[in-house]
Amino acid sequence: MIRPASQVEHVADPLRKAGRMGNCPDPQTFLDMSPKLDLEQLDRLHDTSVLSSSQFDLPLMRELMKLAAYMQLRKFEAGRALEDKILAAAFFEPSTRTRLSFESAMLHVGGKTLSVADAKTTGVAKGESMRDIGQMFNSYADVVVVRHTEQSSLQDLAEYLRIPLINGGNGSDEHPTQALADWYALCKWRPELAFGKLPDKFRLNIGIIGTPGNMRTVKSFLSLALNFHENINHITIFSEMADPLGDEIREMTNNSPIGIDFSRNLQQSLEYLDVIYMNAIAFLGDGYRFFGEAFSLSKKSQLKPDTVILHPLARGEELSTDLDETQHNLYFNQADGAVWLRQALLLAIFGRVRHVVPREFIA
Amino acid sequence: MIRPASQVEHVADPLRKAGRMGNCPDPQTFLDMSPKLDLEQLDRLHDTSVLSSSQFDLPLMRELMKLAAYMQLRKFEAGRALEDKILAAAFFEPSTRTRLSFESAMLHVGGKTLSVADAKTTGVAKGESMRDIGQMFNSYADVVVVRHTEQSSLQDLAEYLRIPLINGGNGSDEHPTQALADWYALCKWRPELAFGKLPDKFRLNIGIIGTPGNMRTVKSFLSLALNFHENINHITIFSEMADPLGDEIREMTNNSPIGIDFSRNLQQSLEYLDVIYMNAIAFLGDGYRFFGEAFSLSKKSQLKPDTVILHPLARGEELSTDLDETQHNLYFNQADGAVWLRQALLLAIFGRVRHVVPREFIA
Amino acid sequence: MIRPASQVEHVADPLRKAGRMGNCPDPQTFLDMSPKLDLEQLDRLHDTSVLSSSQFDLPLMRELMKLAAYMQLRKFEAGRALEDKILAAAFFEPSTRTRLSFESAMLHVGGKTLSVADAKTTGVAKGESMRDIGQMFNSYADVVVVRHTEQSSLQDLAEYLRIPLINGGNGSDEHPTQALADWYALCKWRPELAFGKLPDKFRLNIGIIGTPGNMRTVKSFLSLALNFHENINHITIFSEMADPLGDEIREMTNNSPIGIDFSRNLQQSLEYLDVIYMNAIAFLGDGYRFFGEAFSLSKKSQLKPDTVILHPLARGEELSTDLDETQHNLYFNQADGAVWLRQALLLAIFGRVRHVVPREFIA
Repeated sequence: MIRPASQVEHVADPLRKAGRMGNCPDPQTFLDMSPKLDLEQLDRLHDTSVLSSSQFDLPLMRELMKLAAYMQLRKFEAGRALEDKILAAAFFEPSTRTRLSFESAMLHVGGKTLSVADAKTTGVAKGESMRDIGQMFNSYADVVVVRHTEQSSLQDLAEYLRIPLINGGNGSDEHPTQALADWYALCKWRPELAFGKLPDKFRLNIGIIGTPGNMRTVKSFLSLALNFHENINHITIFSEMADPLGDEIREMTNNSPIGIDFSRNLQQSLEYLDVIYMNAIAFLGDGYRFFGEAFSLSKKSQLKPDTVILHPLARGEELSTDLDETQHNLYFNQADGAVWLRQALLLAIFGRVRHVVPREFIA
Repeated sequence: MIRPASQVEHVADPLRKAGRMGNCPDPQTFLDMSPKLDLEQLDRLHDTSVLSSSQFDLPLMRELMKLAAYMQLRKFEAGRALEDKILAAAFFEPSTRTRLSFESAMLHVGGKTLSVADAKTTGVAKGESMRDIGQMFNSYADVVVVRHTEQSSLQDLAEYLRIPLINGGNGSDEHPTQALADWYALCKWRPELAFGKLPDKFRLNIGIIGTPGNMRTVKSFLSLALNFHENINHITIFSEMADPLGDEIREMTNNSPIGIDFSRNLQQSLEYLDVIYMNAIAFLGDGYRFFGEAFSLSKKSQLKPDTVILHPLARGEELSTDLDETQHNLYFNQADGAVWLRQALLLAIFGRVRHVVPREFIA
Repeated sequence: MIRPASQVEHVADPLRKAGRMGNCPDPQTFLDMSPKLDLEQLDRLHDTSVLSSSQFDLPLMRELMKLAAYMQLRKFEAGRALEDKILAAAFFEPSTRTRLSFESAMLHVGGKTLSVADAKTTGVAKGESMRDIGQMFNSYADVVVVRHTEQSSLQDLAEYLRIPLINGGNGSDEHPTQALADWYALCKWRPELAFGKLPDKFRLNIGIIGTPGNMRTVKSFLSLALNFHENINHITIFSEMADPLGDEIREMTNNSPIGIDFSRNLQQSLEYLDVIYMNAIAFLGDGYRFFGEAFSLSKKSQLKPDTVILHPLARGEELSTDLDETQHNLYFNQADGAVWLRQALLLAIFGRVRHVVPREFIA
């Protein structure tokens, strides 16, 4: 609408509008738990591919999250760290969020990017083998992030790559960097989670909404949760399905040091859940709308005052926007921190951490 | 075709082939009217979003155009000015020209880019809220250019952004940077337009082709035209429609210090039009072909010798290529200058003008 | 699959997995034939477009390949050589490989990129004229690579460009940079090819699979082959078609100093072929499957021990993966070298070779 210049506000004044919305834990509090970086841990990631959450134990996660926190606090300059490196983002299954998150992370550390945003517009979609796709990326890039609908494709691809491969979410298998970002948010919220054992009454009860189509984020999140078993009291997986996660998770949960059970009733459990890991369920089509309301949250939900909600976004009606301005909203911070976490991951993969971290921050 | 090497000409020798075609006013002439930059004016854009043409009064336009002219003349180096900044080009309604124009501008000042070229290939298209899209860009970029089919979406988006938002053309509402580029071309052509009052006989008669589907470029162009009311004699809007622009423009034109009227007959008006602002009408489908010829221009049209034509391009049959090599062709210069104008805008939005302009050019 | 961290191998360790597969000739051997660069030859490419293979005679090819070899051996740093330049990759006919190959090459020499990956998502696809597309790129970029289905479009486009145009493969006409990459691989394999006359018994017999849909790569490859006529004994074009390549090639072959004939039986010719230039035939649809096996190669084929295979990739069933780990596989090296060759081309087009090559390497 055309209005006289004097009537148009400066709508992007960071101090006036849209201040950081929701729960924004200060990364400094997390860093204060253990300020110095243990570079030997980060060296474990040098020249490695990131295919599975199971590559990350707690010592490695700590250092990765600390490095991310340092950069999120702008404690040092990393803007040229990977200026001679190219990241190829190969999204055979489209995803704006994840692709832009990785590309942004790479640009933030001075790197360059190549994009394949949608396989349907490329010759690659015509059934070209993973081996040949791998050879292609060997020639064009220094690291490749791949999202593919086929679960097995990443393993095939990794066989032929000479450069690190990052799993950007494959089929119903895993989404390791998403899970790392999820736990980065939780660790900034409750730093003690990552450092030592909490008194029993502070141990967390976590609820996870588990539905088909979200398997990979849930599996990866659960896998990393096992690292924090000392500080997790209980995990409940909410699903309308009788056997939501299949054998794989059943095996993990049977052997897990955390008590894990299943439930169909999220609303009844709200009184004891400290963390709720939501997923988009409104996109799943009519078959699931029957359960939609049962697995939705809004300001009217009987949440505990301190409960935080995670959601990988994009969201549908399951997560009401009236929660955005409350302290329950950890999902915006989760998305925001994901870029920093991915930056840390990239620096570690390329062995460039020493290049950017001042000596005073190193153990 | 395969020919012996000796027979292939060097087709891109800038001195031989395709010299600058059409009317190419020297930016120096414009700059000579007022060489020193008034940085206070440009400071008004620091950290602001650009949603509407109404944000730009004549003092601000002057300085923006002067800054663009300086860079177009390569008077100083700005190639690293925004090297630590990321521009996200989010084109939910695809547009190669506008997207590449912005990306090119950002690259020219050392910045980096993230592209979303088509919403249909992304999860974002599934009805994700503007709020969540805003949050996403907050995390990934430092400035975002958005084109969206829904008019209201930009206002929604701006609510949740903590970074500047540039309107890349929204629905039938506005396209402010296009209008700025349009007037940059006109001001280089007639520098006196922007500096003081012209004698009556030199005041301009402007014709605008107004058709549905082009509303946003016309509205923005008209809005900025009001800034030059002292030097515009008359504006005629040519349209086959009874009420081409609706209430909004009627309101603006009723209150406007410029005489604005409507006509169906472009050809009859050519004898007095100094500037013709065309739009693509051949793409509009069969319903408008009846009027196609009436609103088309070619070398055969009875243009005044000095008449200049603007067209945001891409064009169809309404603007004949036989005009390209004439002095009527200001549309190539218009497109060319748009990149420089957008560079100036980006430098101002980021408050980096002082970083690149040598002291000698500052008032 | 979620496994304990200790069980996940470091799958991208370059020393353990997927070592360079296939035949990887050392570029140093090629360079040793004539170590110093003749910059006058490379100057011939300054500010030129690359439309046709016929622009490249042997003296120019030698220097281009030597420059590529220097960079492939990392003999000097070129990572900022084109840091102020923008390459627009305009792929109106989609191609992930060629587009990424060019974008990677540009990024490797410090340049920046703009991408149009698929015309269907852009307004440009609506029949916009080549002239207007050219004008657009004049404003946005410093060099443009174009792939278009229409053969004539590149000539039209070159008329209006003021920046160099590189043919990324147009219709059934040419794909010059692909051919340069093909011969770069062959010259690294047999350096003597490019330097002086081989004894008769070492002169090559080359087989080319010629099918519709692959005309441009074949034509360009043949065109460059003429430069090596002293060292080529014979070329056989294998095709199921009666007249596979039409008048144009007939004319070239009639006048050619190399004996060229046609055959339908690849398998019978294997005993004397030194080089087999394959193309994807499995994508061509049912009409050609009848000939599919006749033109396929695998480890079972009766190849000579030293025979090398080229294939522009992506491949289908015509080239079996069981050949990948053999010395017959020159196609991986061909794709890999293509990025270096394109880097050399870009440096030469921008006249920036002197900027990066140390004096000791210059004649």
